[in-house]
Amino acid sequence: MEEYLSEALNLSNEAIFGVWFLIGAALVFFMQCGFAMVEAGFTRAKNAGNIIMKNLMDFCIGTVVFMLLGYTLLVGQEACGYFIGTPNLGLFTDFDNFVQSGEASNFVFNLVFCATTATIVSGAIAERTRFMSYCIYSAVISLVVYPIEAGWTWGGGWLASFSSLTGLVASNGNEVNFIDFAGSACIHMVGGCAALIGAIFLGARIGKYDRDENGKVVKVNAIQGHSITLGALGVFILWFGWYGFNGAAASSVEELAHIFLTTTIAPATATVAALIFTWIKNKKPDVGMCLNASLAGLVAITAGCYIVDALGAAIIGIVSGILVVLVCELLDKKLHIDDPVGAIGVHFANGIWGTFACGLFSTETGLFYGGGWGQLGLQCLGIVAILSWTIVWMVALFFCIKYVPVMIKFKVNPVKAVAVAKEKGWNGLRCSAEEEVIGLDITEHGLSSAYADFMPTIPSYDGTGVGVDVSGVKPADMDLVSQDRYTKITIITAQDKFLTLKDAMSQIGVTGMTVTNVMGCGTQAGKTGQYRGVKTSMHLIPKVQVDIVVSTVDPKLVVAVAQNVLDDGKYGAGKIFVTDVENVMRVRTGETGIDALDNGVPEPAASNA
Amino acid sequence: MEEYLSEALNLSNEAIFGVWFLIGAALVFFMQCGFAMVEAGFTRAKNAGNIIMKNLMDFCIGTVVFMLLGYTLLVGQEACGYFIGTPNLGLFTDFDNFVQSGEASNFVFNLVFCATTATIVSGAIAERTRFMSYCIYSAVISLVVYPIEAGWTWGGGWLASFSSLTGLVASNGNEVNFIDFAGSACIHMVGGCAALIGAIFLGARIGKYDRDENGKVVKVNAIQGHSITLGALGVFILWFGWYGFNGAAASSVEELAHIFLTTTIAPATATVAALIFTWIKNKKPDVGMCLNASLAGLVAITAGCYIVDALGAAIIGIVSGILVVLVCELLDKKLHIDDPVGAIGVHFANGIWGTFACGLFSTETGLFYGGGWGQLGLQCLGIVAILSWTIVWMVALFFCIKYVPVMIKFKVNPVKAVAVAKEKGWNGLRCSAEEEVIGLDITEHGLSSAYADFMPTIPSYDGTGVGVDVSGVKPADMDLVSQDRYTKITIITAQDKFLTLKDAMSQIGVTGMTVTNVMGCGTQAGKTGQYRGVKTSMHLIPKVQVDIVVSTVDPKLVVAVAQNVLDDGKYGAGKIFVTDVENVMRVRTGETGIDALDNGVPEPAASNA
Amino acid sequence: MEEYLSEALNLSNEAIFGVWFLIGAALVFFMQCGFAMVEAGFTRAKNAGNIIMKNLMDFCIGTVVFMLLGYTLLVGQEACGYFIGTPNLGLFTDFDNFVQSGEASNFVFNLVFCATTATIVSGAIAERTRFMSYCIYSAVISLVVYPIEAGWTWGGGWLASFSSLTGLVASNGNEVNFIDFAGSACIHMVGGCAALIGAIFLGARIGKYDRDENGKVVKVNAIQGHSITLGALGVFILWFGWYGFNGAAASSVEELAHIFLTTTIAPATATVAALIFTWIKNKKPDVGMCLNASLAGLVAITAGCYIVDALGAAIIGIVSGILVVLVCELLDKKLHIDDPVGAIGVHFANGIWGTFACGLFSTETGLFYGGGWGQLGLQCLGIVAILSWTIVWMVALFFCIKYVPVMIKFKVNPVKAVAVAKEKGWNGLRCSAEEEVIGLDITEHGLSSAYADFMPTIPSYDGTGVGVDVSGVKPADMDLVSQDRYTKITIITAQDKFLTLKDAMSQIGVTGMTVTNVMGCGTQAGKTGQYRGVKTSMHLIPKVQVDIVVSTVDPKLVVAVAQNVLDDGKYGAGKIFVTDVENVMRVRTGETGIDALDNGVPEPAASNA
Repeated sequence: MEEYLSEALNLSNEAIFGVWFLIGAALVFFMQCGFAMVEAGFTRAKNAGNIIMKNLMDFCIGTVVFMLLGYTLLVGQEACGYFIGTPNLGLFTDFDNFVQSGEASNFVFNLVFCATTATIVSGAIAERTRFMSYCIYSAVISLVVYPIEAGWTWGGGWLASFSSLTGLVASNGNEVNFIDFAGSACIHMVGGCAALIGAIFLGARIGKYDRDENGKVVKVNAIQGHSITLGALGVFILWFGWYGFNGAAASSVEELAHIFLTTTIAPATATVAALIFTWIKNKKPDVGMCLNASLAGLVAITAGCYIVDALGAAIIGIVSGILVVLVCELLDKKLHIDDPVGAIGVHFANGIWGTFACGLFSTETGLFYGGGWGQLGLQCLGIVAILSWTIVWMVALFFCIKYVPVMIKFKVNPVKAVAVAKEKGWNGLRCSAEEEVIGLDITEHGLSSAYADFMPTIPSYDGTGVGVDVSGVKPADMDLVSQDRYTKITIITAQDKFLTLKDAMSQIGVTGMTVTNVMGCGTQAGKTGQYRGVKTSMHLIPKVQVDIVVSTVDPKLVVAVAQNVLDDGKYGAGKIFVTDVENVMRVRTGETGIDALDNGVPEPAASNA
Repeated sequence: MEEYLSEALNLSNEAIFGVWFLIGAALVFFMQCGFAMVEAGFTRAKNAGNIIMKNLMDFCIGTVVFMLLGYTLLVGQEACGYFIGTPNLGLFTDFDNFVQSGEASNFVFNLVFCATTATIVSGAIAERTRFMSYCIYSAVISLVVYPIEAGWTWGGGWLASFSSLTGLVASNGNEVNFIDFAGSACIHMVGGCAALIGAIFLGARIGKYDRDENGKVVKVNAIQGHSITLGALGVFILWFGWYGFNGAAASSVEELAHIFLTTTIAPATATVAALIFTWIKNKKPDVGMCLNASLAGLVAITAGCYIVDALGAAIIGIVSGILVVLVCELLDKKLHIDDPVGAIGVHFANGIWGTFACGLFSTETGLFYGGGWGQLGLQCLGIVAILSWTIVWMVALFFCIKYVPVMIKFKVNPVKAVAVAKEKGWNGLRCSAEEEVIGLDITEHGLSSAYADFMPTIPSYDGTGVGVDVSGVKPADMDLVSQDRYTKITIITAQDKFLTLKDAMSQIGVTGMTVTNVMGCGTQAGKTGQYRGVKTSMHLIPKVQVDIVVSTVDPKLVVAVAQNVLDDGKYGAGKIFVTDVENVMRVRTGETGIDALDNGVPEPAASNA
Repeated sequence: MEEYLSEALNLSNEAIFGVWFLIGAALVFFMQCGFAMVEAGFTRAKNAGNIIMKNLMDFCIGTVVFMLLGYTLLVGQEACGYFIGTPNLGLFTDFDNFVQSGEASNFVFNLVFCATTATIVSGAIAERTRFMSYCIYSAVISLVVYPIEAGWTWGGGWLASFSSLTGLVASNGNEVNFIDFAGSACIHMVGGCAALIGAIFLGARIGKYDRDENGKVVKVNAIQGHSITLGALGVFILWFGWYGFNGAAASSVEELAHIFLTTTIAPATATVAALIFTWIKNKKPDVGMCLNASLAGLVAITAGCYIVDALGAAIIGIVSGILVVLVCELLDKKLHIDDPVGAIGVHFANGIWGTFACGLFSTETGLFYGGGWGQLGLQCLGIVAILSWTIVWMVALFFCIKYVPVMIKFKVNPVKAVAVAKEKGWNGLRCSAEEEVIGLDITEHGLSSAYADFMPTIPSYDGTGVGVDVSGVKPADMDLVSQDRYTKITIITAQDKFLTLKDAMSQIGVTGMTVTNVMGCGTQAGKTGQYRGVKTSMHLIPKVQVDIVVSTVDPKLVVAVAQNVLDDGKYGAGKIFVTDVENVMRVRTGETGIDALDNGVPEPAASNA
């Protein structure tokens, strides 16, 4: 009787935690959204579409290659030397069995974990990596690099089976196997390590470091992200998803509660630690660093979330909050490795810390809990093994992505390819300087702006331009006051009339103009609105200012035509001002005067820039 | 004994999947957020508040009408000719029973499904539909159109009961009933069909198509969405919510895992397919299309998510990723139907494809799995039946919304109403051209901007203005250099001093000015900040430039007053420049010289524009 | 046998709802994200980083203090006079037991509830509160204020045990205990009350109210939020999370469905009510108010979500939708209490209404359901008791935060501190006027902009500047046309060349300039892109306009150097215009002519502003 009761409970428990496992997988999928938002928010607007694509493709390309090979390399490693799974296409050939045996569940969960590993890298190598190269990287990490090492811990590999393989036990008699419950090492350290190697292979973004003639960095510049709110949204989504990330594999309510508790304590204490640390260190509490600290705490608690207690979680969190600040600054200010979103500090440093900390704080086998040095040693061994694996693959991978195209294009051997790539300023990994300055949205995807309705600001970071020496330049050979008459007609009118005005001007031979957004301010009431019940009246009306400089085209005709097309008999139709311009030069040719104005065009649009 | 065990498991299973069903409903609710973000992101900033409101009201108005009638039309159709449910107010009159019988659960779930159907339309008819008309559409589709057809499949209607009603079986003996597990047909095809009809009734947005004098489209213009990141956020939220959408009705862990697996494979392969397809076709991988392809894959797998295998899901996904690109381009470039967010390509085309594909790939009854043609035939019958129902209702509905107000306003019969509406350029469905150009936020909701702190850019799309011919315009009868003296005083100062300056100017009779955001750049260090631990110093300081042109007001007084109010003894107080203006014209009246400046006002604010 | 079956079901039910309880907690955690987005969206961009930090720190600081003391004050109140729990550090000292007894689950859930209470306040006191003061407030409310009163209802305190303590029963014999299932009173009313007191202590934001010389408000200005889409995203996230907030404590599927149903009906009807109400009242349906109404409906249904029926929920919702509009307007227009996000109207007013409404609509004990006046009386008693507790604490807390620093800084007693604070315009709670005008992102966190890539607009709200009287100002003693020659060189070129140009100018002694974003419009095709398959070509090319005014530096040299560094032989290199400037004045010193130009610097950057 008791037996049936217990069987009923086992079966219902299996169903309960089977459903929760899949809910957890959905939460981990949602973390892809969090990564996309964090990475987009902490990089520049001109690359926002590109970073979104990279995050989306991580998951989608990852799914394809994980189906084809990755998954089967991950699972069932005990049957194959505890090191690698046996490839098969059971997903396609024996689908019914795949579903009924619970593999489908396992597949989905391992897939979303795999995609997390891949996506960590995109932030660190953002804003300068070719999209095609990123797709290749993403396919390789999900196809083979991640699955094999993850299987060591989660697919019955040698780290998971360490105690039974070697007989290692802790001082207190508990079995000692590698502890990495949800992937501080297998996922975050691996992703962070790949991010580090990728960032080194790529080099820093243009404008990030000012260097003297010897290439020594003389100044570190901050390149601000374009949306702190988007970044914060991403962090909150990641934290939310992390409850699934850490908790999905729980098998009892108590264990799940334990995991939720530690998964809450660590990031909270990490964030408070970073708050206090940056406040003291930099005089002001740093928003970006505190957001990073939340993620750092989450990464660090991931390995031991089910086996450390509240105190352990708090200490792990505090250390991670300080560690992320120190590592980010070390990378940026000392090592001059440019990581736009702080992925290396968050995932690499804290992935290692979190894995190591299990050797200290595991309540079963940790050094501080009477378990002796065994667990700590195994944690270190695991870290070294997984890191070595990742480094070998990633160095080879990024080397190939960077230099194989150089070898092919310039028909050189690998040794020469490095020199040639440097000399030509071209390689397969990094986009050209021009593409980088213009932004990857337009150059890689043809997306002229991710924020088409908003006026971009002028870059205000501290970087200098490309070194330039103008000491030998002589004053221009031009009259300040030209013989001919150049007239500037300034038209201020409503924005929606601009296209009509442009057409009309084109008909009388004026084809160029300079257009500025301005606000007109007058005596009469502007358009009234309401905002949460309170009337708003705009005393500043958005207007467009069009400046046209003409010489051979009759200025009076310009004025008459403008008045003709703009006058709709309503207030606000606008004003036209006439001023004298003394001379004009076209930069490209150095022509001055009338020659610089073709048909009165002050600014011909670029055909190629 | 066994029996008790099995009963215990059944009951606990019921509870487990009862809870999951409701979690799924919450996830589907969250999809409303996804739709709102996608639709807002892919349309223009000037309509962002309006599109948010439409999405919010879909759900809220939908809830009200679904409570009053919709729900009871959906359920229990077997009791009423397998075609329609029996209206009753049990929700209000017999609430206890409603809850205890499990109806409450069912109600919530069907409601969030219903709201999904309604909200699909808002994207396709965005940026030009009257808000009131949208509310009416939304109420009708949730009140009667959706509930009845959805009941055919999910409320015990004729499609759900097809096999028992007709005895239809597949070649392999399996029962053949209409397959639409989570609504490729009932929801997405219906919403997409309504979107198509709505978009046709509305016509394209101003500026979308350039037409010659015969009305033939000579050029297709792209009107870019205002935030690709917001759009991407929406897509990720939708994908996340879709695990609930497709999975909620699962009744075992294996089935749920099966659904999660196919619901992951299809959108992933669809996105990769669109990546490759657009890359080859357009030379560059398209961000917007890849995001749409993810949704297309999700829509397509919705019908068969529980009954196709991994290979089927992959093929369904690949086709959907290419289909969405082709259909979007067909609609836009050939048929000239303007769908701002691609809802028709995503939901209509792939709703049909997904439903049809079940007839091919169902592992139980599909053509490719030995089930013969029966299932495929029934799928087609279902598609035709549901489409016919939707088309009849939607044509009638949009016709009434568009023309009944015309009939009432101009007292004409339905036949004449069409001609009158065209002639007057006024109908009940579409807002006026002026409202559309200005944006629906301010005209429909009095919200002057959804992004009050950001400078809008000048529209840069390719469209021409309204056709204008200026060939007969003569040069203006004005002196280029006026007899009187007009002086422009340009003041560059800190932004926060602007309001004080404006007040002071008003006191001396200057009531108009042109205001521009500029950046001042000087030698001294600007305000320093920090960003992720690195010091930032802004070398470009945000400033405001105020241009005032005066004649009768003494320019020296303007300078003196400006200096007086702006001088706070600190660096950065600003500079004042004096320049000569030769003449000025007021557009509205054609007045020139002093007459064009009332009290030195260069630009009186609009009273009505 | 039956007994075993029932035990099996009880145990599996416990596990099911144990897991759901934690999923609910994760959803409530996600509400922190919703609050952050709502509050950021409805305030200004210059404070976006600050409001994000406040929301993040609410949770993180709250976690720390809740671990140390808060939690134990909340639970087990029956053992300690039904008023307060007994502090202990069991979380740290007896962790195993803490987890196994289910306390861990309880802790996590109560923590996320606690953080919700704290975070409500940040919106109402946004844009003007010192960050340090906010951290102190946040710690105190989570440490002691919330835990004790929440325990009255949820920790076995006197309100939870009212019937057994007093024997109170309803007319129909049902036990009468205080009804507040998920916290309309304990959380929302308390948070809203704290928000109200905080807003009163702080006073209104600068520019919110125009006052005459007697301090009487003569005009109420709207200060618009910077992103309605972000605000809407937050509302959708909150609504989604609310299914966890209200539903987490359910213990059967039927109860959960009941809760989901009422939690859907109330906000939906509230939103429709606000739609209609604002449409009639203000002629246009208000976006911000409808979003607030959704939240109002959710707050109001929170107390009785499990015990009111569909009709009750609908009525509660309708009232709340109208109430929130009226209260927000009352506060803003009559009481002149400045609540940037409407937190008081949403949480305070509807927290009270929702709690009160349980006395009317509870199907077990409500007045309208035959329960007599008992429940209504107890609801009122609960409201008064909890409010009194909150008011006492919050008045004391905000008084101390505001005036203790004044006492210390100026060495005065509490009575004098109020007067001194007013006189000096300095207190511990509110940042300085200058900080407020500049924005808290830069002043509190050194974050120069949360949106570094976007051009900020010029503030357009109705407020006047600081009162200024210029009646005595005499015309400036300057020549309109100076003896010396001042030449303005206007350079229009590509944005990415600006830094190089700036460097070159600096080398020839030009160190200041005014920079404006403009769009150049020419005849040749601009850069082409694609958007969703349609080619885009930008006819307006983003350019930068640099204005330099020189006198002693040779203008011809400026032109020559500019041409030299900008000419890259490509189209689009730009144009240079030369115009005459008649005079120039430096505001800070009143110097005119050459003296106003140091080395030709038109605008020295601010060193301290």
